[in-house]
Amino acid sequence: MRLSRYFLPVLKETPADATIASHQYMLRAGMMKQNSAGIYSWLPLGYKVLKNIEAIVRDEQNKAGANEMLMPTIQSADLWKETGRYDDYGPEMLRITDRHEREMLYGPTNEDMITDIFRSFVRSYKDLPQLLYHIQWKFRDERRPRFGVMRGREFLMKDAYSFDLTKEDAVKSYNRMFVAYLNTFARLGLKAVPMRADTGPIGGDLSHEFLILADTGESEVFCHSDLVDMAAPGDVDYDSDLQSFVDARTSLYAATDEMHEPDEFAKVPGDKQLSARGIEVGHIFYFGDKYSGPMGAKVMGSDGKESNVMMGSYGIGVSRLVGGIIEASHDENGIIWPKSVTPFGAGIINLKAGDDGTDAACEDLYGKLSKAGIDPLYDDKADRGGVKFGRMDLIGLPYQLVIGPRGVKDGIVEVKDRKTGEKQNLSYDETLNYITAQYRDK
Amino acid sequence: MRLSRYFLPVLKETPADATIASHQYMLRAGMMKQNSAGIYSWLPLGYKVLKNIEAIVRDEQNKAGANEMLMPTIQSADLWKETGRYDDYGPEMLRITDRHEREMLYGPTNEDMITDIFRSFVRSYKDLPQLLYHIQWKFRDERRPRFGVMRGREFLMKDAYSFDLTKEDAVKSYNRMFVAYLNTFARLGLKAVPMRADTGPIGGDLSHEFLILADTGESEVFCHSDLVDMAAPGDVDYDSDLQSFVDARTSLYAATDEMHEPDEFAKVPGDKQLSARGIEVGHIFYFGDKYSGPMGAKVMGSDGKESNVMMGSYGIGVSRLVGGIIEASHDENGIIWPKSVTPFGAGIINLKAGDDGTDAACEDLYGKLSKAGIDPLYDDKADRGGVKFGRMDLIGLPYQLVIGPRGVKDGIVEVKDRKTGEKQNLSYDETLNYITAQYRDK
Repeated sequence: MRLSRYFLPVLKETPADATIASHQYMLRAGMMKQNSAGIYSWLPLGYKVLKNIEAIVRDEQNKAGANEMLMPTIQSADLWKETGRYDDYGPEMLRITDRHEREMLYGPTNEDMITDIFRSFVRSYKDLPQLLYHIQWKFRDERRPRFGVMRGREFLMKDAYSFDLTKEDAVKSYNRMFVAYLNTFARLGLKAVPMRADTGPIGGDLSHEFLILADTGESEVFCHSDLVDMAAPGDVDYDSDLQSFVDARTSLYAATDEMHEPDEFAKVPGDKQLSARGIEVGHIFYFGDKYSGPMGAKVMGSDGKESNVMMGSYGIGVSRLVGGIIEASHDENGIIWPKSVTPFGAGIINLKAGDDGTDAACEDLYGKLSKAGIDPLYDDKADRGGVKFGRMDLIGLPYQLVIGPRGVKDGIVEVKDRKTGEKQNLSYDETLNYITAQYRDK
Repeated sequence: MRLSRYFLPVLKETPADATIASHQYMLRAGMMKQNSAGIYSWLPLGYKVLKNIEAIVRDEQNKAGANEMLMPTIQSADLWKETGRYDDYGPEMLRITDRHEREMLYGPTNEDMITDIFRSFVRSYKDLPQLLYHIQWKFRDERRPRFGVMRGREFLMKDAYSFDLTKEDAVKSYNRMFVAYLNTFARLGLKAVPMRADTGPIGGDLSHEFLILADTGESEVFCHSDLVDMAAPGDVDYDSDLQSFVDARTSLYAATDEMHEPDEFAKVPGDKQLSARGIEVGHIFYFGDKYSGPMGAKVMGSDGKESNVMMGSYGIGVSRLVGGIIEASHDENGIIWPKSVTPFGAGIINLKAGDDGTDAACEDLYGKLSKAGIDPLYDDKADRGGVKFGRMDLIGLPYQLVIGPRGVKDGIVEVKDRKTGEKQNLSYDETLNYITAQYRDK
C-alpha cells in the first residue's frame, strides 16, 4: 500500500480523555475514531489489525474442531425471558422496541439463542458433540465506557458453545477450548495465564479467565509465576485426551481478585508468588444445563432416555485484544506490533520523494516485497524525514526500510528493527532476503 | 469436513412461509434459521457461502483502490439530525434509546457517519481522492419482511464512499465502482445489468442499480438484451480512463420500472427489447454535496479556496446475494453453486459407511482432495444412499464423488456434475486430477 493512497489520519496530540497507552496510540496512529461514547469506527490501519487477530482466533477454533456460523446482533427478548435473564441482565443490556412494538435487544452474549437453535434441530446423542462458534459484534451498555476498545460498548467477541450428552464429555469440550485458547494467545504474541474466575452473569460451576499481565489491567491477579512463561501446547491432536495440558496449569495457583484465597496463595514458594494486574482476554465456562434446562433442550441417549444437553460457552474479546496487544507491546514512541498481527509486514520510508533515483529504488523494493507477500506500507509522501520516522515508529510496523539519496548512491537500505531499535545497512537483495526470512515461519 | 462432525440440519419439508426458491432451499439445506421476523442465524453451510461472496466483493473493492474500514452498527442520532435524515427516514429506521436516554439508531446506511469521519480528518485537496468502504450489518425495520434474506431486516451490506474535489473527479470514482461492480458480479457467476434508477432516500442526480434477471425479482425491468451477456471488463487498470466501459452499457436502454420511459424503450430494435423481472444486488449513487454541504465537510483546493467535498456512495447487498445466486442457479432438486462461491469444492458420498474397503477409499480421496485445497465435504454418515444423494443435490456442491463397495472393487469413482447431471466413472487418480483441474483457474 502506498501511503499517498491510504487513509491514515495520524494525530499529533494525544486526545485528553485517553489515559492508557492503547487508547492513546490507537487514536494517534489513525487506527480508530470514536463515534459515540464507547462506540468506534475502525479506520483502515486498525481494521487490518482487527482482521488479523480475528483470522488467528478463527484458525485456532477450526483446528479445535469448532464450526463457524453467525448469529444476528438483534435478538428477540422472548428467549431471554425463557431463561430468566431478561430481567437479570440489568441496564447493560441495550433494549429495543421495533416498529411492531416487539421487545428486542442487541445481544451481549448468545447462550439463549444458540440453545434455541440447538433444540430446533438436535434430538439425539448421535448428533453430539457439537461445538459451534461465531465472531460477531456485541453490545453492552456500560455505564461509563472508557479506555478505548478495552471497555467499549460495541465490541467484537468470538463466542463458542459446546453441547454434550454428559458432564464428562462436556469437560472434554471445555479442555479443547482451554488448549485452543492457550495456542491462540501464544500466536498473538501474548503471555496469557488461565485463572480460576467468577462466573458472573453467564453462570456455571467451572470457569477460567485468561489474563495477560499489564500495569493497566483492570483486575488484580495472583498466580504462580511459572504460569507466565509456560509454553503453549501447540500442534496437538484435539481428539486426544487434553487433560494433562489443563492440569499442568490448574495445579498451579492462579486466581483473579474475586476468587483469590490468600491462604492458598501463601503456599506458593515465596519467589514464585506473583501479584500483578491483568487484562481479561478470554473467559470459558461450563454451566451444564443452566440454559438447556429451562429451555427444554433435551437429547436422547443411547439408552433411549432423554436428558438435558450439557453446555459450555467460551469467549474471546477480539476487539479488546487489539488494545491488549498494544498494552503488552509498546514504547514511548508508539506501538510495536507482533509479526503475527502487524497491519503491514514492513514500512518503506522514502527520504526524498520526487527524487528520481530514490523513487526508483523505493518502487523497486516495494514491488519486490509486495510480490514476496510481505504487504509493505510505502511512505511515498512529501513530508520531511522527521515526520516520517515519527509516524512509522508510532504505527509500529516491525521493520522500517529507509531509503535516501545517499543510500541510493551506495546501493544501501537502512533496515531498522522497531522493537530493538537496531539498525543495519543492507544491500537491496539482502534487505529483501532478510525481511522475507523474518516472515517465513509466520 | 466430515459430515459427521458438521452441523448441517437439513429439513425434509419446505417451511410453509417460504415461497421462493432461495428462501426454501436456504432453510431446507440447513444454511440458516430464522430467529425473529426478517432476522436469521447463518448456520455453518450458509455462513461459508456468505464469507465466500464477501471475499470476492472485498477483493474487487481492493483492486479498484478502495480502502477497507469498519463503522459500528449503532450510531448517534445527532449526525442524522445534521443532515435532516433522522426525520425523513421513517419507521424503517430502528431507533434506540440508551441507558443515558441518548437517541441512537441501528445504521441502515452510513453516508452521515462517513461524512463526519471525513470532516474530522481531511482538509486539503492533497488528501483526495478518498475511497473508503466497509462490509457491515445493517438494519432496516421492514414492515413486512419476507423472501428470506432477500428482504430481511438485519442484512450484510458492502457500502463504499468516495470523496473528490470536483464533480469531474467524482465521476471517475463513480466509474471505478461501476467497473468494479461488473467484475464482482461476473466472478459471482451472475449476469448483472446496470440500469438507470431512482435515487430514493440516498438522493443525488446520477445513479445506477445492478440487477440480475430472475422470475422472482421484485422489480420490473426493461433493457436492451445485449446488456445481459456483455462480458465484464475484467483485469483493468483502475487508474486509467474507464468511461468507455460505462458508456458501452449506459448507451443501451436499461431502466427499472420507476425510471422506465416507454417511448425510449420503443426505439430499441424489437428483437432486442427485453422486459423481465430483476433482483437488485447493487446500487451506486453520485450525490455531490448533499451530505458534505449540511455537515460542513469542506476541502481546500490548490487555489486556496474551500469547497464542499463531492461524494458518492456504492452499495452491494452481500447477504441478499446469497439468495440472488440461488434464484439464478437452482433446479427442482436444490441449489447449484457456482464454483467461485461453493461452500465446499466437492462432496464425497460413502455408499457403505462402516465397510472397511469403502471407508478406506473415501478417506484416501478425502485426504488427497483436502491436501489439494479443494475443501471437500465427506458424507461419512450411516444414512442410506437415497438420503445421501438427495442431501448432496440439495446443498448443491458442483461435484459429487460417489464411492461404493462395487466401485471400490473396480477402483472406480462415480463423478457427477451437479449442474448438468452428467456422470462419469473415473479412477481415483483421474478423479483427483479432474476435480483439481476444475478449480485451477478459480
